[in-house]
Amino acid sequence: MTQPTTPTIVLLSQGDELLTGQTVDTNAAWLAERLTELGFKVLYGVTAPDETGAIERALTAAFEAADALICTGGLGPTSDDLTTACVARVAGVELALHQESLDRIKALYAHWGREMPQANVKQAMLPVGARVLTNDWGTAPGFEWLHSGPGGACAGYFVPGVPREMRQFWEHYLRPALVARFERPPVRRVILRCMGIAESSLEERMQPFAGEPGLTISFRTKLPENQVKLIFDAGVETERADAVVARAREAIGSSCFGEGTGPIAEVIGAALAARGETLATAESCTGGQISAQITEISGASRYFLEGSCIYSNEAKVRTCGVDPEALAAHGAVSETVARQLAEGIRDRAGATYGLATTGIAGPGGGSPEKPVGTVHIALATPSKTVHRHLRLRGSRERITSMAAGLTLDLLRRHLQSNDY
Amino acid sequence: MTQPTTPTIVLLSQGDELLTGQTVDTNAAWLAERLTELGFKVLYGVTAPDETGAIERALTAAFEAADALICTGGLGPTSDDLTTACVARVAGVELALHQESLDRIKALYAHWGREMPQANVKQAMLPVGARVLTNDWGTAPGFEWLHSGPGGACAGYFVPGVPREMRQFWEHYLRPALVARFERPPVRRVILRCMGIAESSLEERMQPFAGEPGLTISFRTKLPENQVKLIFDAGVETERADAVVARAREAIGSSCFGEGTGPIAEVIGAALAARGETLATAESCTGGQISAQITEISGASRYFLEGSCIYSNEAKVRTCGVDPEALAAHGAVSETVARQLAEGIRDRAGATYGLATTGIAGPGGGSPEKPVGTVHIALATPSKTVHRHLRLRGSRERITSMAAGLTLDLLRRHLQSNDY
Repeated sequence: MTQPTTPTIVLLSQGDELLTGQTVDTNAAWLAERLTELGFKVLYGVTAPDETGAIERALTAAFEAADALICTGGLGPTSDDLTTACVARVAGVELALHQESLDRIKALYAHWGREMPQANVKQAMLPVGARVLTNDWGTAPGFEWLHSGPGGACAGYFVPGVPREMRQFWEHYLRPALVARFERPPVRRVILRCMGIAESSLEERMQPFAGEPGLTISFRTKLPENQVKLIFDAGVETERADAVVARAREAIGSSCFGEGTGPIAEVIGAALAARGETLATAESCTGGQISAQITEISGASRYFLEGSCIYSNEAKVRTCGVDPEALAAHGAVSETVARQLAEGIRDRAGATYGLATTGIAGPGGGSPEKPVGTVHIALATPSKTVHRHLRLRGSRERITSMAAGLTLDLLRRHLQSNDY
Repeated sequence: MTQPTTPTIVLLSQGDELLTGQTVDTNAAWLAERLTELGFKVLYGVTAPDETGAIERALTAAFEAADALICTGGLGPTSDDLTTACVARVAGVELALHQESLDRIKALYAHWGREMPQANVKQAMLPVGARVLTNDWGTAPGFEWLHSGPGGACAGYFVPGVPREMRQFWEHYLRPALVARFERPPVRRVILRCMGIAESSLEERMQPFAGEPGLTISFRTKLPENQVKLIFDAGVETERADAVVARAREAIGSSCFGEGTGPIAEVIGAALAARGETLATAESCTGGQISAQITEISGASRYFLEGSCIYSNEAKVRTCGVDPEALAAHGAVSETVARQLAEGIRDRAGATYGLATTGIAGPGGGSPEKPVGTVHIALATPSKTVHRHLRLRGSRERITSMAAGLTLDLLRRHLQSNDY
């Protein structure tokens, strides 16, 4: 049995707002990731302005180059929404009124208590022969146009550019249609999520896997997290892929906190909930980022008791019982104070664990002994208190988000170790 | 005196990671925004894979279509970094070793305590006749290639794709070079930053300005903030533009918190610092997002005393002195508790202002009387306590970020009013 060849796709993003930087095109990457997962290959992406000539050139080129085209945007009611008319022209067909679509748009306006502006009639004018994709999430219908040209056939999908609507079209129409239309070689994709390890060090540890047949390795940094993506070709047997994944996890060691899981706060939350344990946090330089991440997980109220952003020295003393003499002797940014904060908030909240941060986020506030980026973090457990001295670089935002991530990672490592 | 015509630019983003969705291309929008501000017109954008044919086609098309090209990515040391070789081929010149660049790369590796891998030599091989753009922020040098073809001249700029490095190249080379090379019609651009007003309502209030000659109005939503962008053509006199901006601000009213300012937390911070006033926060459903935003502003320690994420009922009572009977009678998500939290944290920290949130972020925890998205927020001032009942929709993330933004806005409105 021969493997099917990989079907190709062109992504066309439509709209002046993308070319003036008003809007970052997140649709293209979102679609590309899902298409790649399904076994499609994205040939290239184009962003076209609201100009008939440019759109028609882009359509013609895509129809020739690829097995399918996904075009987002340009389906609105205003004069700069040109996509549908351009498709009709390139396809050599007329536009015709699709009464059902017009009725839906009118009903939507009626629901809003307004009369439909005349301009919206345009949204119901669709290329003759196109399959209409009903929009249950907004006004503009999408459509499928199966193009046959001298270079072969191309299935064109035209959907609104609003990301919320686009994603619904993907789920309800595009994904099912593409999967039904194109055979694809099966691929397997594993993401190893890592914290507390540099990308260069991850690359080094993955070096031995470079020659592995049928395996593509890539790296992605979403600070403070680093991810390793392993993509196995269709030809790789499941057992061999399993074995490679296991060896890769072993090579990374304890810095890998999960495989295809959610963010680290979710991993922590699941572990705390499973153990019936609780957490409280005392944040100085991270200003609430840790508690915000913890509480972003639904159900966090089961294990998260209290977070304290003890920004002033008075608050450190009052809330966490930090010893004013220790503060005076070592300064707020010190190992002693970090430990006292973690232990203090743990006691105060009656939690199993206390996490704490204190540091200099910059750009001001640094000194030769304690430069910007100096951060002390601590974890207090029922049996001991663990401390780390971080020396971080970069902007204020980078320093605080790295510090928040590495503090969460301190707890994650404790929860995932057998050391309790 | 005639106005210069608008010079045109093509943006070429290079790399397979953009076409598999591993990376969202933020470079293109970042560059497009700056280019538009400078008076350039971005003709179109292309994302090309790591394939010689596709890159060469994209280069050829861009050299023909535009006055300038900015290409990001593809300058790395590995075999899938193909940009430089493709430029040389399209330009019809050889690659030659640029010794100074090689020396810099070697020195960088030496600084890291490592020997330069042989693969990196490639990064110093540049098209003969190109102007080298020294990289002080990474390994790969960029370069400028002035192309002359049958369609006219095109200035090509080739820079690394890592956003941090790309932005340095823009600041140090691209911006100065483009400004020096191309005359552009002057434009003026004003951003009105708004909070607590729906985009549709903003559009309605801007309706009377639609016919204003030489003015382009656009809207941008970065929840919980909405922005109105006013772009005035070269022909519009300063006084008339000033008058339009003033009228637009008046039309929006108190929902506009600034013009070309930083985020709302910065506006709040500046006002607090100027008045010598202080702030403390008590967050339940927002989990620390408010304190994280406040402390993201450098110098926040001058006015931010303490933040408390009082997630459990015990913490609400212990930390903010909420009355347990009020909790039992009204529930944690209630006007009474929001007011007591704001007043309690204000008292406790000895701050001028106390801000508080309590709500149901979902997806679980809702009831018919208090559905998901029910949030009570409060501001305690020296003279009174203000409360708002929010009814928010959407995901947990959307609800909590809207709640955090609108709570900050409660304080912002107080600080910007004359009501103190």
